[in-house]
Amino acid sequence: MSLPDPLCDRLRGILGTRLSQTAADRDHHAQSESFHRSPPPDAVAWPETPEEVAAILAACNDARVPVVAWGTGTSLEGHALPVRGGLSLDLSRMDEVVGIRPEDRQASVQPGVTREALNRELRATGLFFPVDPGANASLGGMAATRASGTTAVRYGTMRDNVLGLQVVLADGRIIRTGTRAAKSSAGYDLTGLFVGSEGTLGVITELTLRLHGQPEEVAAALCAFETLDQAVECVGATMQSGIPMARIEFVDAASARAFNRHSGSALREQPHLMIEFHGSPGAVQEDAARFGDIAAEFGAQDFDWATTAEDRARLWRMRHGAYHACLALRPGASGLVTDVCVPMSHLPAAVAAATADIAAEGLIGPILGHVGDGNFHSLLLVDPANADEIAAAKRVATRMAERALAVGGTITGEHGIGIGKRGLMRAQHGDGWQVMGQVKAALDPHDILNPGKLVPDRN
Amino acid sequence: MSLPDPLCDRLRGILGTRLSQTAADRDHHAQSESFHRSPPPDAVAWPETPEEVAAILAACNDARVPVVAWGTGTSLEGHALPVRGGLSLDLSRMDEVVGIRPEDRQASVQPGVTREALNRELRATGLFFPVDPGANASLGGMAATRASGTTAVRYGTMRDNVLGLQVVLADGRIIRTGTRAAKSSAGYDLTGLFVGSEGTLGVITELTLRLHGQPEEVAAALCAFETLDQAVECVGATMQSGIPMARIEFVDAASARAFNRHSGSALREQPHLMIEFHGSPGAVQEDAARFGDIAAEFGAQDFDWATTAEDRARLWRMRHGAYHACLALRPGASGLVTDVCVPMSHLPAAVAAATADIAAEGLIGPILGHVGDGNFHSLLLVDPANADEIAAAKRVATRMAERALAVGGTITGEHGIGIGKRGLMRAQHGDGWQVMGQVKAALDPHDILNPGKLVPDRN
Repeated sequence: MSLPDPLCDRLRGILGTRLSQTAADRDHHAQSESFHRSPPPDAVAWPETPEEVAAILAACNDARVPVVAWGTGTSLEGHALPVRGGLSLDLSRMDEVVGIRPEDRQASVQPGVTREALNRELRATGLFFPVDPGANASLGGMAATRASGTTAVRYGTMRDNVLGLQVVLADGRIIRTGTRAAKSSAGYDLTGLFVGSEGTLGVITELTLRLHGQPEEVAAALCAFETLDQAVECVGATMQSGIPMARIEFVDAASARAFNRHSGSALREQPHLMIEFHGSPGAVQEDAARFGDIAAEFGAQDFDWATTAEDRARLWRMRHGAYHACLALRPGASGLVTDVCVPMSHLPAAVAAATADIAAEGLIGPILGHVGDGNFHSLLLVDPANADEIAAAKRVATRMAERALAVGGTITGEHGIGIGKRGLMRAQHGDGWQVMGQVKAALDPHDILNPGKLVPDRN
Repeated sequence: MSLPDPLCDRLRGILGTRLSQTAADRDHHAQSESFHRSPPPDAVAWPETPEEVAAILAACNDARVPVVAWGTGTSLEGHALPVRGGLSLDLSRMDEVVGIRPEDRQASVQPGVTREALNRELRATGLFFPVDPGANASLGGMAATRASGTTAVRYGTMRDNVLGLQVVLADGRIIRTGTRAAKSSAGYDLTGLFVGSEGTLGVITELTLRLHGQPEEVAAALCAFETLDQAVECVGATMQSGIPMARIEFVDAASARAFNRHSGSALREQPHLMIEFHGSPGAVQEDAARFGDIAAEFGAQDFDWATTAEDRARLWRMRHGAYHACLALRPGASGLVTDVCVPMSHLPAAVAAATADIAAEGLIGPILGHVGDGNFHSLLLVDPANADEIAAAKRVATRMAERALAVGGTITGEHGIGIGKRGLMRAQHGDGWQVMGQVKAALDPHDILNPGKLVPDRN
C-alpha cells in the first residue's frame, strides 16, 4: 500500500523531507519489543510542532487515512504498530522540556521527551519524575498507555502524575485539558480520558507533569524467602501495615537464576523481594525496621542492603534488565509477557495458580512484578517457530487474565491493550466496552486514529 | 408542568407509591444550600435498586423527559436542581454499605450512603474514608461533583479514591467501570469520566471506594499570623518542604471573628492556619516540629494544640461550620461562595487580589480554604433583595475566576459547575468544552440526564 498522491503532496507541503516512504524507515516503525508484528506503515512523518501535527491529522482525516503515533517503540503489546497501514507519526523530534516550575512541582514537556531525559534536566532542582516502567520510554507514550512500574506503589501511575495535556484531535483541533492547579472540579476529566487511550482519541503534543521531591534518604535491599508463598504473603502483610514502601518487587527463583547468569549476581536461586524506602532519615530507619520485623515473620533471609547510590543503581538495573535476562534463559526464545493485577488479598492465590499452570503446560515462565500493587508478570519463553508452544503460552495468559477478572482484577495492570489484549476487553468491561466505542466514534468519526485497536470494531 | 400520563403510568408500575407529585416533595427537590433556585421537578422518584433506576431511565429516555439525580441536596452550585423540569431521582433509599473488604482496603457502597455513615461502619476496621467536604454529603453526590475538602492535600479527592462504579446510562444499560485492583491499563478510564460528570452522563448506583488506615497518631493545631500574606506564604513554604500535611487550612481575620461569634471560640481576630498531622508517633512529632520551624519564620503565634480527640473534633467542627458561621455575620444574608484553585506559587497573589477586590466593591466576604492544594473560597454575603449587591458579588467572583485562569488555575477546585459556573466553562476549556459536549451527546443522545448543565447547549 502507499498513501494517495494528493495526501502525499499535502503532507510534503507540511513536512518537506521529514516525510519518508523508504523501506528502512517504514520497517523500523513496524518493529516492537515483543513478539507482535504488523505490516509496515505506508509512510513515516516526523513533525516538530503541535501545529504540524494538527495539519497532518486534518489532512489524513480528510483522506480517511490512519495515523498511528510512535514514541520510542518500547511498548510490549504492539500499541504503535500500524495494523491498518497509513501514517506512522514519529514524535521523537518533539523532545523539548518546555518548562520546569519547581515552586509548583511541575514540568511541561513535549511527548518525545523520555523519562530519563526529564530526570536529567531535573537533577539540580531537588525534584524528580517518579513513574518508572523500566524502559526509557517517551513520556507521551507512557501517558498513552497509562504506564506505571516499580514506584507506582508510592507515587502512583501516569494517571496520577499527568495534570494536563495538549492534544490534537482527529480533525486537527488543538485542545488543552486539565490545569496547573492541584485539583479541579470543572467538568469531565478529559486528561484522564486521554491518558490510557493508546492514541485512539487524539495525539498528545504536550504534557504537564506532577513532580516529587527527591527523597532526603533512600534505602534499598534484597531479601530471600524459602517459598514463593512466604514472599508474596509478606508483601500482603507489609501493605496492610501501611508502611509507605517506595518499591516492593517480587522475583521468583527462575528470575533470580536469570539475574545470576545475566548480571553476574550471586543470589540464592529462591524467591526474593527487592524493596526501597524513601523519606527523612528517621522515617526510613523506622520503615525499614518495621518491614524487617514483618519479613522475619515470613522467614526472610540474606538481607542485602544497597547502601550507596551505585549499589542501588546496580540493584534496580538488575530488576529493569529482567526482561532481557529472562529471555537469555532460553536462547532464541521470544517472550510473551503477562500483566494481570488483582486485589491484594487475592495475590498469593493468583501467583500460585499461575505458577502451577505454567508448569502444567510444560512452559518456562519466570514470574516477577510490582506486587505492592497486586500486579505481576510472567515472561513466557516460547520458540517463535513452535506453534504449539505459542498456543500453550496464549492459553496460560488467557487463563491468568480470566482468573484475575474472576476476583475483580484487571487483564492489564500497566502494559495496556495494544494488539495482545483486545480479545479480552469484552470479558473485562461488558457493555462498558461499547461505551468506549461510543466515545471513540464521537471524537474520531472516521476512525483514523490507531484504528483496529482498543475499542470494538465499528459495524 | 407535569409528566406525560403514559410515562407516569410506566413509572408507577416500577415504583408504586415511591413516585410523588405532591407540591411538598417537589418543592423539597428544588431547594439548595446556596442562593441558586429552580422550578420544582414534575415528580420525585425514590428507587431502591439499580434495576429500578435502569427501568426509570429507559422510560424517561423513551419519553424524552429529563432525569436529575439527587443525593442530600448539599451542593453549593445547584447541580441537582431540575432547571428543565422532569423527574428528580432521589437516591437516598439506596443507602446500603454493600461490602467492606479490609484486607484490600476497599468498600462498596450504594450512592445514598453518606460519608459519615460509611465512617461509622468502618470504625471497628481500623480504616476510614478520608474525603471530607464538610457537609455530610452522599458518596454518590460526592463522586458526581468530584468533591474534596480539608484532607485532599494528603489523601486526594474523589478522583483518587473511587476505584470503580456501577452506572446506569441514559438508555437504561447498566455498566461497571474500573476494577478492584489498585491500577489498570485496560482502556479508557470510564470511572474517571463519570466522576465529576454531575449526573449528565449516567446515574451512579454503586461505588467501589479506596479506604485508608486510621492514623496511629493524630495531632492538630491552630496558629495565628499578623498578616494574611505571612499565613499564605507559610503554606507555600510548608508544601515546598514536602511535609506530608494531613490538613492545612487558612482562615482570614473575618472568618476568625465569625467563629468567635458562632462557636464561642476566643481566637485573635487575625489570619490563622488550622493544621493536622497523621502518622506514626515519631513521624507526627518530626512533622510537627518541622512545621513549627517554618511557621516561626513567618511569625506564627499562639500555637494551640488540640491534644484530645474531643479537642480535634471541636476544631474541625468549627472549620466545617464556617459557612453558617460566616452567614451569621450578616443576618438575612445569602452566600455566594467562590472556589478557585491556583498553582501554589500563585496563591499569595490570588488571595491578596481577592481581598482587595472584595473591599473595593464594598462587600463582606470572609476568605478561607484548603490552601495546601491552592484552593480557597470567599463567602460573599449579599442581601438577596439587593440586585446591585448580587451583581457586585458576581463581578468579584468572575474576576477571581478569570485571575485563576490567567495563571493556569481552575474556576472550581471542588464545588463543581452546576448552575453557577457554566458561563465560565468556555473560558477555562476553549474547544475542550465542545469535546465534553460531544462525549455527552454520544452517551445521552436525547439529552435527558441533567440537561442544561455542564456542557454547551445543543444546536
